[in-house]
Amino acid sequence: MGLGGEKTAGANGANPIPTGRVTAPGLEKLLYECFPVLDHGFVRVIDYMGDDSAIVQAARVSYGRGTRQFSEDSGLIRYLMRHRHSTPFEMCEIKFHVKLPIFVARQWIRHRMANVNEHSARYSVLDGEFYVPDPKHLAAQSGANRQGRGAVLEGAEALQILEWLRADAERCYDHYLAMLNEDSSGAKLHAKRKGLARELARMNLTLNTYTQWYWKIDLHNLLHFLGLRADPHAQHEIRAYAEAIMQTVSRWVPLAFAAFQDYRLSAATLSAPMLAVVRRMLAGETVAPAESRLSKREWAELMTVLGRAP
Amino acid sequence: MGLGGEKTAGANGANPIPTGRVTAPGLEKLLYECFPVLDHGFVRVIDYMGDDSAIVQAARVSYGRGTRQFSEDSGLIRYLMRHRHSTPFEMCEIKFHVKLPIFVARQWIRHRMANVNEHSARYSVLDGEFYVPDPKHLAAQSGANRQGRGAVLEGAEALQILEWLRADAERCYDHYLAMLNEDSSGAKLHAKRKGLARELARMNLTLNTYTQWYWKIDLHNLLHFLGLRADPHAQHEIRAYAEAIMQTVSRWVPLAFAAFQDYRLSAATLSAPMLAVVRRMLAGETVAPAESRLSKREWAELMTVLGRAP
Amino acid sequence: MGLGGEKTAGANGANPIPTGRVTAPGLEKLLYECFPVLDHGFVRVIDYMGDDSAIVQAARVSYGRGTRQFSEDSGLIRYLMRHRHSTPFEMCEIKFHVKLPIFVARQWIRHRMANVNEHSARYSVLDGEFYVPDPKHLAAQSGANRQGRGAVLEGAEALQILEWLRADAERCYDHYLAMLNEDSSGAKLHAKRKGLARELARMNLTLNTYTQWYWKIDLHNLLHFLGLRADPHAQHEIRAYAEAIMQTVSRWVPLAFAAFQDYRLSAATLSAPMLAVVRRMLAGETVAPAESRLSKREWAELMTVLGRAP
Amino acid sequence: MGLGGEKTAGANGANPIPTGRVTAPGLEKLLYECFPVLDHGFVRVIDYMGDDSAIVQAARVSYGRGTRQFSEDSGLIRYLMRHRHSTPFEMCEIKFHVKLPIFVARQWIRHRMANVNEHSARYSVLDGEFYVPDPKHLAAQSGANRQGRGAVLEGAEALQILEWLRADAERCYDHYLAMLNEDSSGAKLHAKRKGLARELARMNLTLNTYTQWYWKIDLHNLLHFLGLRADPHAQHEIRAYAEAIMQTVSRWVPLAFAAFQDYRLSAATLSAPMLAVVRRMLAGETVAPAESRLSKREWAELMTVLGRAP
Repeated sequence: MGLGGEKTAGANGANPIPTGRVTAPGLEKLLYECFPVLDHGFVRVIDYMGDDSAIVQAARVSYGRGTRQFSEDSGLIRYLMRHRHSTPFEMCEIKFHVKLPIFVARQWIRHRMANVNEHSARYSVLDGEFYVPDPKHLAAQSGANRQGRGAVLEGAEALQILEWLRADAERCYDHYLAMLNEDSSGAKLHAKRKGLARELARMNLTLNTYTQWYWKIDLHNLLHFLGLRADPHAQHEIRAYAEAIMQTVSRWVPLAFAAFQDYRLSAATLSAPMLAVVRRMLAGETVAPAESRLSKREWAELMTVLGRAP
Repeated sequence: MGLGGEKTAGANGANPIPTGRVTAPGLEKLLYECFPVLDHGFVRVIDYMGDDSAIVQAARVSYGRGTRQFSEDSGLIRYLMRHRHSTPFEMCEIKFHVKLPIFVARQWIRHRMANVNEHSARYSVLDGEFYVPDPKHLAAQSGANRQGRGAVLEGAEALQILEWLRADAERCYDHYLAMLNEDSSGAKLHAKRKGLARELARMNLTLNTYTQWYWKIDLHNLLHFLGLRADPHAQHEIRAYAEAIMQTVSRWVPLAFAAFQDYRLSAATLSAPMLAVVRRMLAGETVAPAESRLSKREWAELMTVLGRAP
Repeated sequence: MGLGGEKTAGANGANPIPTGRVTAPGLEKLLYECFPVLDHGFVRVIDYMGDDSAIVQAARVSYGRGTRQFSEDSGLIRYLMRHRHSTPFEMCEIKFHVKLPIFVARQWIRHRMANVNEHSARYSVLDGEFYVPDPKHLAAQSGANRQGRGAVLEGAEALQILEWLRADAERCYDHYLAMLNEDSSGAKLHAKRKGLARELARMNLTLNTYTQWYWKIDLHNLLHFLGLRADPHAQHEIRAYAEAIMQTVSRWVPLAFAAFQDYRLSAATLSAPMLAVVRRMLAGETVAPAESRLSKREWAELMTVLGRAP
Repeated sequence: MGLGGEKTAGANGANPIPTGRVTAPGLEKLLYECFPVLDHGFVRVIDYMGDDSAIVQAARVSYGRGTRQFSEDSGLIRYLMRHRHSTPFEMCEIKFHVKLPIFVARQWIRHRMANVNEHSARYSVLDGEFYVPDPKHLAAQSGANRQGRGAVLEGAEALQILEWLRADAERCYDHYLAMLNEDSSGAKLHAKRKGLARELARMNLTLNTYTQWYWKIDLHNLLHFLGLRADPHAQHEIRAYAEAIMQTVSRWVPLAFAAFQDYRLSAATLSAPMLAVVRRMLAGETVAPAESRLSKREWAELMTVLGRAP
């Protein structure tokens, strides 16, 4: 599992210590536990702050008497989520240890409102682990959608691609070690060679090489991340991580997570022209796409949302 | 102590619960405890994530073998602080409940890298508490420094000012309640009046009225806040809060706090022209201010740093 | 109009200078021009970077061949807005000079992703200008909604409130000057008094006192601000500023602004349970509120969005 | 030069247009001009907002009468830089088009306070350009410093490394095209193959492959970036970009840049124990490293700063 995995500084999972802080019993059980993702990756929770009650507490500080009408936490949390009152959700924080391919890390890091400590190949030698897709995820380029995937590749084409991915990553990694003048145990290869600086040698690695980081984020920004990355349009590989993270969030803040599912993940935003179409349809009118002010793609999206055939 | 004070949702200070997370024993003792600040304000810790070991852990993930030379946590933390490797410090988070005058809140909020839930006077009626300075802090405007304070005011001038501050705040608050058509117990004053909207009535309050908020921030940004607000040039009132916060930080992350004192609070940045002066002085030269490329003010600052008479 | 108004450093509005940068002709005409807001406030554009074409350009760098299908800028911008591809909108930046009451400034500053330089009452003496609502905006507290306004106040109650607002602000301001030992021209009042430090005297001012700031923000974050602050649920006073700003944005980036109106301002997000109701209604079913899984308030909101009586 | 290079939407460099905005004459001349960096990279300025006068203007809004003592802009800007009054510098903004190797992009992106639109390999096919270091920068790993470089490699070892870097990048790129089932002109290779999705094929590329982005940042954060990345401890490759950027900043805001050089780039921060040593030395004492409270490394750093032999 690599660095940080075997011995986690300060971890007392085996030996719980009493705390006066809020605890989330559902998440305590999952602390430090690895959720496997892709072929060599994982997600695990290292630490957290707050739970559903911390969201409610922050809201009650802000809105004071305005929250009395919500006799139960669930109703208040759903109200906050629905009206995009985001600051109470920022009062919860979580820290993950993640192992992921570099090309996924490059997408992930675009979420700027988080704290990151990544394993640095300037200081250390990376492990020789690479992501090679499961054959059932080896998809063709979509013809319709420039960012999407089409049918799964098969036969000789698929075999050839998997072979290239594996062989190129391995050759590049072997040369990386050879440039460093190290073997896989860290021993010197050639007594007379000096070895290239690590900060330079790393550039020979392929983008499916695995890296690791600690990633810390507040619940509001985490839900924003999940809203984008657990979406069907997200790339399969980052979505696999989003799904593993959702398993931890559902145990950590079950009320907030349920509200997130209803008001974000399974919700739809209808534009002004879309709303006009819906109103006409509800009034019994048959609306033709051509007179809807919607593009073909928007029309198709609307019909999907409404559960109708395009 | 106002809202949130008596009953803290989820707090189990009296009844500690076992956790697998990292705990900071020194801070556990202070959880929820009020540190009084100014005449009616306070700071108290509501929650935290991480401790000194979490900084070390994050650094070891990042720098891997590069951290082996630091056999002890203290040495590594001092190295990180000195070289401004800020991301490991971002892995610790703390949440405070603060009661503070509005004019202090306005300075404080300029630190953007934090999460805030403030008591909203749009939703609730504020308490009638105002900051009136202790007579020994009732300072005149500095003649030399436009943002500074001069000598303490005395006699009739001081008495008059204290009286205005008290009477104006009270009158404005009484009218605020009257506009809301409420008495201090929340009961209606005039049966036939409707009462002004809270979001409007609040504008009649003075800037020394107390407000409250939950404030959550990571350790790196907190130390940046303290570096600016615990500085002798900071306004006395916000500095009083910074000093109360420092008492909690010193128990939370004692190694990081000691490094912060040496490398930030008590350190000095010398500009290129200042360094040139120091080198000449060390070479035995007597440097005259006029030939130092330093402004009068810079010269005075340098002499203070060097422990010499200007 | 106060500081910064008469002479704007570097402004060459009267004397345009050739530039190789992108220019937005519609906004050039409005540069430095004051849009009055409330009784003494204003908004004016000081500077800007980019226009609609800069959004398109950034998208084409990102998506490359993926943008070829959009032969026109308008289609591409609408696509980006609809799919919440926010980074191209971050490539445009605008800077405003705003004069606003302090209680509005306190709401405004909660939008953290912006740059601010506020007139500091630590360094300078504030002008004696206060916001007093127009009688037609002097609203009662709403009974139904804790953050809302009810009917407009009338008669003796209204007169009394306006009088208090005016008199309290003036008395507080007069005492502020007296504490500083200055008259309104800046001359010393009493030869023997020292005057209180500015940083302390300011606390005697009321929250309807006007302040000023320079505010710089990118287009993505500005549209987020407008989405919240031009909303009917926003407080009237900040909404007045949002509306003035919208006048400038519509001339600056007309295509992005039109997309914002369709996909944000006049759009509606329907939760999973709301979508279920709509689908049933479209299938010809009569749905009773009680069996909708929606709260009363959510039901009412949905009916409003669908243009039906609740 | 790749996409965005030949035709820049909205660019009117050849055909300047009058603007009422502040202009920076020194930078106007450099607009859109490529500064070559490394073997295939570049930096060029696409747009900017503000200049030295905009910093001064923002400071005068904030500090009002407090800035009168600075009769000249230069003095005020130096004062702001020295006292870390950072908000006036945030009022200037600049936008660059940068072409850079992916491993450099991964370091660069850690500066979160900026806006980025990167060329996406999910949507488009990347060009086959790779960074291969100039032989004089092909450095060995430093023995003393885990993040540093040692002597330049020579002879067979160097030749072998350069050959591996070139051949591995090319082979990986050729296979990338083959996976996409495209030749370098974009034509289909095999009529019967579907081609792998772009978002997957990109993972076969090496980290020295060039990418491109638009990068927009305010002057305060840009100077922070330059302070870290133009430092001798920064990796040579990113430093090359920092140096190209400094050439543009020096023409854009010459006063701020000169202050930055004196108070940041060529300044040194001395810790409390370091200052104690300097004071003793100035008092004529001979201080032995062992009784200095400084680590060996700190002692060496201090001696370097003081221009003395360690």
